[in-house]
Amino acid sequence: MGSNVNGNAGDNVTSTSNGNGNGTATVDKGVDFANYFCTYAFLYHQKEMLSDRVRMNAYFNSVFNNKHHFIGKTVLDVGTGSGILAIWSAQAGAKKVYAVEATKMAEHARELVKANNLQDVVEVIEGSVEDITLPEKVDVIISEWMGYFLLRESMFDSVICARDRWLKPTGVMYPSHARMWLAPIRSEVADQKMGDYQGSMDDWHEFVTETKSFYGVDMSVLTKPFSEEQKKYYLQTSLWNNLDPNQVVGTPAVLKEIDCLTVTVDDIIQVKANILSTVTKEDTWLCGFGGWFDVHFNGRPENPAECDVELTTAPSIEYGTHWGQQVFLLHPPARVNKGNEILINFLMNRSEQNHRLMNVDLGYEIKFSAGKMLPPVKNKFYIE
Amino acid sequence: MGSNVNGNAGDNVTSTSNGNGNGTATVDKGVDFANYFCTYAFLYHQKEMLSDRVRMNAYFNSVFNNKHHFIGKTVLDVGTGSGILAIWSAQAGAKKVYAVEATKMAEHARELVKANNLQDVVEVIEGSVEDITLPEKVDVIISEWMGYFLLRESMFDSVICARDRWLKPTGVMYPSHARMWLAPIRSEVADQKMGDYQGSMDDWHEFVTETKSFYGVDMSVLTKPFSEEQKKYYLQTSLWNNLDPNQVVGTPAVLKEIDCLTVTVDDIIQVKANILSTVTKEDTWLCGFGGWFDVHFNGRPENPAECDVELTTAPSIEYGTHWGQQVFLLHPPARVNKGNEILINFLMNRSEQNHRLMNVDLGYEIKFSAGKMLPPVKNKFYIE
Repeated sequence: MGSNVNGNAGDNVTSTSNGNGNGTATVDKGVDFANYFCTYAFLYHQKEMLSDRVRMNAYFNSVFNNKHHFIGKTVLDVGTGSGILAIWSAQAGAKKVYAVEATKMAEHARELVKANNLQDVVEVIEGSVEDITLPEKVDVIISEWMGYFLLRESMFDSVICARDRWLKPTGVMYPSHARMWLAPIRSEVADQKMGDYQGSMDDWHEFVTETKSFYGVDMSVLTKPFSEEQKKYYLQTSLWNNLDPNQVVGTPAVLKEIDCLTVTVDDIIQVKANILSTVTKEDTWLCGFGGWFDVHFNGRPENPAECDVELTTAPSIEYGTHWGQQVFLLHPPARVNKGNEILINFLMNRSEQNHRLMNVDLGYEIKFSAGKMLPPVKNKFYIE
Repeated sequence: MGSNVNGNAGDNVTSTSNGNGNGTATVDKGVDFANYFCTYAFLYHQKEMLSDRVRMNAYFNSVFNNKHHFIGKTVLDVGTGSGILAIWSAQAGAKKVYAVEATKMAEHARELVKANNLQDVVEVIEGSVEDITLPEKVDVIISEWMGYFLLRESMFDSVICARDRWLKPTGVMYPSHARMWLAPIRSEVADQKMGDYQGSMDDWHEFVTETKSFYGVDMSVLTKPFSEEQKKYYLQTSLWNNLDPNQVVGTPAVLKEIDCLTVTVDDIIQVKANILSTVTKEDTWLCGFGGWFDVHFNGRPENPAECDVELTTAPSIEYGTHWGQQVFLLHPPARVNKGNEILINFLMNRSEQNHRLMNVDLGYEIKFSAGKMLPPVKNKFYIE
């Protein structure tokens, strides 16, 4: 679920292991709530996600076209929000559904379950899935945990924890698989952002001149940190965008593949990939890179889905989602031509200040026809 | 300083007394930082305040037109931000200035002090004024602590604490006095907001119909809480506005007067006032109320300013400030005429979830000519 995270404030991550048993740092719960969880307590935000037809259709179809996974089974819905996935699981025939939600939205989920006559099947539990106790292990864990570019918000950590605590050895994950994708793109936004940055610096210089002149204080020593702050804000922070497929100028490539049954938090703390993309358009511009994800509902080898379902957030005119894509812009853009090869090295780590946000190191080299290459370029980005 | 406060997240205020000695509740520091302090660590935000000419001129004039308060004296700047007030105090002749700042902005303040050759006079201290220790008491406490409508952000609590800990018995406060004002206004925004609210509810009803139809889940039990959430958002949350003086349709009245030398936190935890405003315009609309503040730099009776300075945030074409005014809209508006009397009872308390935000109970009665009166109206508002 794409959502706001307060990127300004650290979550006081300390480097001691804690009770979730996998060596990740302790996050202050009150701060985590102030930074992250609180937005999910708003019905308006739940409605936005519930109004995303592509999202809704994928989960709806994955459940109702695979009733064999649900009939007479026990289910855990991690981060139930309004309760929708728990309700569908019950309607598909589950014997018992535990719907866990950390925010006060749990109270609305409880009302919704009751209003749909499912209170005998669905038990809403308000709390963190890391802390709550269930009376039994479950056959299915269903969750809509995906953030922008898949891993923003780091909610999947909670799903992994739930799986390790509560999924039967034969249990299935909904979704079962996830992939991160990257592709070179063209975009007019890059020029805009550079213009905004330059305008902001012009404004700053005027401000420095006036502050010296009217108020006798020389602020020029702050020009460097101000420009770094503005550069980060305008040029280095990834953007939300709903890209037109025509903006994709080269072959997309997979950065990461996740098997939700076996992946660990250590596997996803860092995303590191060297990929190749071939330019597919004549005489165009490499303005940046677009990142997105897809998930699949395939069940498991021993107990597969009867009907595989895919939820993709790739650029699309008709099937855009509230996730959009994450856009990493380059300054300046580069001219490229059909057949050129772009070698990309991608490294994404969690922000030290806030584990739900990401830092990206993105380097690329362009191999033109006849072997000519530009010097490699390396850029730092922030997913806020 | 008007600023964003994360209104979504509580600051875990507990009801025990704590070390600040005046019976206020303990606020979790990490959460307070995530909700409030963090925005002040951005140079962009400091620049916004430094670019407010009315604000800058008032403080500049209050200091440099009253050098007798500064020459050879010790000064404490509470919440120094970029360091500007501390720098002016030193330039006006202070012997020593302690500039306290809770965020990493303190590092920039230190650079700025050095770049202006004042490091021998100004000592920047990173920390909360409630926690830090000074080697001596001071002659002057200077601070720009005012939030929207004066008390939003509740920063004045910190100034009072600093005064009780560090101001000499003969010391002066900059500013020395503060007042909150309220006036009836007309505004076209009220209709817009009602339209937005109604549009949002129309959209919701469509959403409920479709969710039942396509996904088999009846969301109608959530209509009431959704409408309350939307009502609070569109109709009951005070707005920032830079009002045109022509929009003020009745005589402004003082809600609260504060003597910064003697006021206690208990005095400002609640603002309660019954005021009267006389309509000054012919045949107009009462669409709501506008709230603003002013502060004065008068010194103290035993040691007055030589040159009294006022900083007002009243509606003004030429002298608007970044504080604007806070606007409380009424639905529906009421027709009023010159000479009508509006009796207003105003009650402002701190939000239980976040002591830096406010709840307002605003009731009014209109006394028309010939004694005719409409039934009293009572409204709840939120300053977020």
